Amino acid sequence: MPQFLDFDQPDFEQAFTALLSAKREDSPDVDDTVADIIAQVRASGDAAVIALTKKFDRIALTPETLRITVAEVDAAVAEVSTEDRAALELAAARIRAYHARQLPEDAEWQDDTGATLGWRWSAVSAAGLYVPGGLASYPSSVLMNAIPAKVAGVERLAMVVPTPDGVLNPLVLLAARLAGVDEIYRIGGAQAVAALAYGTDTIPPVDTITGPGNAYVAAAKRRVFGKVGIDMIAGPSEILVIADGDNDADWIALDLLSQAEHDESAQSILITTDPAFGRAVSDAVDARLETLERRAIAGTSWRENGAIITVPDLATAAKLSNRIAPEHLELCVADVDALSAQITHAGAIFLGQWTPEAIGDYVGGPNHVLPTARSARFSSGLSVLDFMKRTTLARMTPDALRAIGPSAERLARSESLEAHGLSVTARLSKLND
Amino acid sequence: MPQFLDFDQPDFEQAFTALLSAKREDSPDVDDTVADIIAQVRASGDAAVIALTKKFDRIALTPETLRITVAEVDAAVAEVSTEDRAALELAAARIRAYHARQLPEDAEWQDDTGATLGWRWSAVSAAGLYVPGGLASYPSSVLMNAIPAKVAGVERLAMVVPTPDGVLNPLVLLAARLAGVDEIYRIGGAQAVAALAYGTDTIPPVDTITGPGNAYVAAAKRRVFGKVGIDMIAGPSEILVIADGDNDADWIALDLLSQAEHDESAQSILITTDPAFGRAVSDAVDARLETLERRAIAGTSWRENGAIITVPDLATAAKLSNRIAPEHLELCVADVDALSAQITHAGAIFLGQWTPEAIGDYVGGPNHVLPTARSARFSSGLSVLDFMKRTTLARMTPDALRAIGPSAERLARSESLEAHGLSVTARLSKLND
Repeated sequence: MPQFLDFDQPDFEQAFTALLSAKREDSPDVDDTVADIIAQVRASGDAAVIALTKKFDRIALTPETLRITVAEVDAAVAEVSTEDRAALELAAARIRAYHARQLPEDAEWQDDTGATLGWRWSAVSAAGLYVPGGLASYPSSVLMNAIPAKVAGVERLAMVVPTPDGVLNPLVLLAARLAGVDEIYRIGGAQAVAALAYGTDTIPPVDTITGPGNAYVAAAKRRVFGKVGIDMIAGPSEILVIADGDNDADWIALDLLSQAEHDESAQSILITTDPAFGRAVSDAVDARLETLERRAIAGTSWRENGAIITVPDLATAAKLSNRIAPEHLELCVADVDALSAQITHAGAIFLGQWTPEAIGDYVGGPNHVLPTARSARFSSGLSVLDFMKRTTLARMTPDALRAIGPSAERLARSESLEAHGLSVTARLSKLND
Repeated sequence: MPQFLDFDQPDFEQAFTALLSAKREDSPDVDDTVADIIAQVRASGDAAVIALTKKFDRIALTPETLRITVAEVDAAVAEVSTEDRAALELAAARIRAYHARQLPEDAEWQDDTGATLGWRWSAVSAAGLYVPGGLASYPSSVLMNAIPAKVAGVERLAMVVPTPDGVLNPLVLLAARLAGVDEIYRIGGAQAVAALAYGTDTIPPVDTITGPGNAYVAAAKRRVFGKVGIDMIAGPSEILVIADGDNDADWIALDLLSQAEHDESAQSILITTDPAFGRAVSDAVDARLETLERRAIAGTSWRENGAIITVPDLATAAKLSNRIAPEHLELCVADVDALSAQITHAGAIFLGQWTPEAIGDYVGGPNHVLPTARSARFSSGLSVLDFMKRTTLARMTPDALRAIGPSAERLARSESLEAHGLSVTARLSKLND
């Protein structure tokens, strides 16, 4: 049974606060191990990567076989069915179209002093994409990470994916090909992150690393942050559904379960204005849990982290939602626009009953890499901007310098930075000659 | 003497690579100390903050006196001269005007399936601004951090600034007032970062923390990253000037010194096509170093980290500049636009001889918080976007779901995520009834 909370009960605030602050995931402290792995890769490059890959993935590589060849990719993608290929191609096209609209604009203008100001955007030269191996190796995640990088204009996109016991994943390789990945290395773990960040003889370093991974990968990304850019450190997935009573309980149950089945630490919450509907959803979840393939995982997640919250009205639902700042938010109410306008913190909003969250995981177009663990309060899903940076531009004229230079001189003096001030003074003196 | 490098000499590549990879700053490893301070603040809140402030800043506070009162700010800003106030006001107005143009646009459109897609931006609710105490307490940095937050729409902006021995800095407090800072606490160090991130009884937690600080502050920001958003971890300042021979050697010398005077670890580099001009700049630096107030710091920086590089042409200068990815880049050449177009990695570009970098530190308009240590390869200066986040939007219609739902079902199955697929299947079944 998930938790049942009622906004009108006196203990609600306490229970809701506890739900908000519950730590769902016990990350093992692997920081020392990861520091050691990174040091090995920095010291010994390919040799360290190869030794660690032999240890963790049980495959013997050489510098020549670190990289998956075009022929290997050809052979693997030939195994993909026509239907799976078509589905991936549709997803890739829709993700590309959505992200193309995110390309930011440069700006340049003259202000009232005659100074020209502005900025321009440019892509990072090289990006690295981490793709987990084994069960969590999702072709959709390859599309969601690689396509924004290529839309941004990244020239060199290098992917790493561990292949335990040497097994390649055809769909992952097809996704990489469709997305335009330039290089693929069969390595994983902290050693792969270190190789991307610092480079080896075989793997040139990149400027930015994105993509999900286990605790070792997350710790490694955190450690190389600063040397390279990284995307967010993702936690377990979450969904919040706000629904009135006029919904199909089974649909909502499946939406809740589609997060719960990811991971025992995942969290699925329903907020409803209709207590009877809440109970119906709870029953529908139980019914679906009897047959679901991943019922062990989904059931644990639902029992330990799930919640059904009854509220007196949708305004209250919106307020609670903003405190949760959910990764995924589904709005299944009569007037979705009115409710959506009240939402200030959410990674992605799915509007209306015809928009199950799973659409967003695959083919909707928006990115499925989204802020977890309440970080939608301050961060955004992955986008083209994660693979770009902005250079600011300023060009003074003699008139502009006359107008604003004296203020710069004054402020430099107030901060005891004499050379700052003199660099302006010397020019103003020339103008006043 | 700084290093003299000549692109045409056989040892150039080796010397330039060494210059690029030189570690200029020895950050003390304060991570354990900082972890302990954060744990104390999380466990004991105000009491821990007060005890640590007594220890490090030698002032005895109570929960009631943690916050600097409006009356105290009134009294302090009354001490500021009319001229200093006018200079700060001009700077604030120009920084505000520049950053107002960075406000991003929301988007919404219908695609060919009838689905509505888009995104919208919103501000973080609360931001924290770290301001160092003592010598490095710069009013200009208060403006550069606080104004973008307020332009973004941050409702609650809380500033922390240590006041060793209880001394307030009138200009810093005036800058805070001009920028619209809502709360000011007289605390600093890792304890202030922890208080902002986790909150205490007196200091409500914030969502994002920005601002410069010493090694303890940097380590604390790195540790609370994820719980809250942070801006970059800044390293020592850098300037690269690309100049032809048709420049005033003294102006360029002062521009180089205006970085060098910040910090012994700062780095100032000149790339020139004219070896004689390079020598003239070196002589001009030496002449200025005889009288400069901060000559000890600037001299050490110049001798240990400075460089003058001679190149055969400006295309080579641009290529070297892109490998350096400088924080500040001054282009003092005849055709600045042609050279600027070749620059792909730089935090900020200052175009032409009338635009000394110091203008950008104070009154130009663009932000002076910029990526250091080659991180302009992948990151940008502080902007309004650092205080905002994007929520993606998707709304399917029955027709849209019919068009793309089957591909989502197929991909869900390929990833063994059954409930994901069923959430689509259940809806499509209803449509096909």
